[in-house]
Amino acid sequence: MSTFEVVARAGRARAGVLQTAHGPVETPVFMPVGTQATVKALSAGDLERLGARIILGNTYHLALRPGAERVAAFGGLHRFMSWPRAILTDSGGYQVFSLRERRTVDDEGVTFRSHLDGSEQRLTPERAMAIQAALGSDVAMAFDECPPSDAPRETIEAAMARTTRWARQCLAAPAAPGQLRFGIVQGGVHVDLRRAHLGDIAAMPFDGLALGGLGVGEAPDIMYGVIDAIAAEMPADRPRYLMGVGTPEDIWTAIGAGVDMFDCVMPTRNARNGQLFVPGGRLNIANAQYKDDTAPVEEGCPCECCASYSRGYLAHLFRAEELLYHRLASIHNLQHYLGLARRARAAIVAGSFPKTPC
Amino acid sequence: MSTFEVVARAGRARAGVLQTAHGPVETPVFMPVGTQATVKALSAGDLERLGARIILGNTYHLALRPGAERVAAFGGLHRFMSWPRAILTDSGGYQVFSLRERRTVDDEGVTFRSHLDGSEQRLTPERAMAIQAALGSDVAMAFDECPPSDAPRETIEAAMARTTRWARQCLAAPAAPGQLRFGIVQGGVHVDLRRAHLGDIAAMPFDGLALGGLGVGEAPDIMYGVIDAIAAEMPADRPRYLMGVGTPEDIWTAIGAGVDMFDCVMPTRNARNGQLFVPGGRLNIANAQYKDDTAPVEEGCPCECCASYSRGYLAHLFRAEELLYHRLASIHNLQHYLGLARRARAAIVAGSFPKTPC
Repeated sequence: MSTFEVVARAGRARAGVLQTAHGPVETPVFMPVGTQATVKALSAGDLERLGARIILGNTYHLALRPGAERVAAFGGLHRFMSWPRAILTDSGGYQVFSLRERRTVDDEGVTFRSHLDGSEQRLTPERAMAIQAALGSDVAMAFDECPPSDAPRETIEAAMARTTRWARQCLAAPAAPGQLRFGIVQGGVHVDLRRAHLGDIAAMPFDGLALGGLGVGEAPDIMYGVIDAIAAEMPADRPRYLMGVGTPEDIWTAIGAGVDMFDCVMPTRNARNGQLFVPGGRLNIANAQYKDDTAPVEEGCPCECCASYSRGYLAHLFRAEELLYHRLASIHNLQHYLGLARRARAAIVAGSFPKTPC
Repeated sequence: MSTFEVVARAGRARAGVLQTAHGPVETPVFMPVGTQATVKALSAGDLERLGARIILGNTYHLALRPGAERVAAFGGLHRFMSWPRAILTDSGGYQVFSLRERRTVDDEGVTFRSHLDGSEQRLTPERAMAIQAALGSDVAMAFDECPPSDAPRETIEAAMARTTRWARQCLAAPAAPGQLRFGIVQGGVHVDLRRAHLGDIAAMPFDGLALGGLGVGEAPDIMYGVIDAIAAEMPADRPRYLMGVGTPEDIWTAIGAGVDMFDCVMPTRNARNGQLFVPGGRLNIANAQYKDDTAPVEEGCPCECCASYSRGYLAHLFRAEELLYHRLASIHNLQHYLGLARRARAAIVAGSFPKTPC
């Protein structure tokens, strides 16, 4: 039985269902980022109340602390963090390549220094998959090389070749029971390279395919151009995942181009910095005008923050540096992102996908 | 109708019910401290799930930020923080007298500098009551002078005289509809002074009486001696409140001496520092042994932390400096304190109050 089924289309946008070992995930879907075995400031109960069906965990961070083997001894990442629904883990590739000054790459893997204690560490395709198997995630990502967006073309081509070789090694490595595996397509902002690499990765029996290395500094129109050209060419019978992107507008545009899955730290990170997503824009809770504002962050929003608290209360908590601020703001911003994906799905199922978020 | 009724006794320990404008409060009761219109790291929903019936707010902090008039414009402190049950506010006396280097006292009040911006501020009995009326708390505390525990006897006597004068002024000031007012007994660690001041304050028509200026640095046995001598002499028909005290053992001992109400920052502050209360003691989650411990903080504890998470997960969150740690640890420690007061009440109602916590 296939793990992914497209149930409706509107233009190039798709509505689907991904079957995981921890339940079905309706797509398009946004995955809150739980870097260190917690979506920052939120409990598993908060995420369930928000209706999140799948969250993301970070191989790099979890391998360093508390350690994959320790998480395995607790019965896996789901039990460790008390999260009963699906988890996708990244492979650590993006994180280790972000440690520019602290890592060296060779054809077999990456040697790097831990940001926690400076200790020397190594990630290879086999180790990345072993960590993800130990964590017991529902979807494991292949270990890829993610070059900077402004890297020379030949650097990007070398990274593609390495990523392709590593992809084969990842598929040959043991997986956790029921664990799906997604391949990652690189190629920078070059549509011809993206297309070539997609051909290589799509030829392998991955359960889904991801676009990596986008939203890493290039102009939005450049990114949209790549997504617009490539997403629809990705295999129609497998889920398409745009890694680490982006604003609500980015996500809506990518859904329109045929992408199914998303993750981004923006809703939780921006929340902590005072930026709250509202229809058509964002508000900065640090602005003086909100100190006396008795309205909720977003009128009609069903989240716990908007149901019970005012902008003025959030403005107070933010100024007073109270921990509750982070939780309430994160809940609202995740509601915005999760709601966006749900509204996108409803529009697709209804047969019409508008150009701008509804 | 009286606002307080004693429904059972066991020795000198009492079980009662205090009627407030936001519902009945069964005593003995522990009041979580919500200094800045939030119990640190917790939402109103968390507090309701913990079964808290009354929480404490701080006049000093709220008057400086966001400002009592602003809170009033939001409909009062209950609506501002979305807390539907009872609130007791302190008068700011303890806080301003703690600002030793930043305040000057005269017979009419205290002039001090804000810890936020250094601005000059003034609290008088009338202003303290006006702030509490604006906040709309269910119980307002009289404005008192709280001298250091090691102050000379004549300093303490002068503070008592001033506190008595101020108490009359507080009772003459307008209150919020349905707002109860409690007087504060000072006298340091001198039982004769405490007894004299109790006579003065008990003679006024306060709805309850508090012991202030204990647990401020004196040895526990000295404090117990004062409580043991004075609590039972406080009017039996009014609630007795021991301000700012203390450990679970302190609270249990004071209940045995006839005290009804308590508040303390210890459960939430210690939680943030890694100290978790368990029967018979405390555990420090920073200890290496907990990294691999799959047991809950306290076996059988009904709190959200113990129901879903392990010591090992909390140890990870604490090391990773994750915001969720503070919430889970605070929930557990408040469960410990709230549960302690509930078990004390059940024991009293059953007719026998043991010497040590059950």
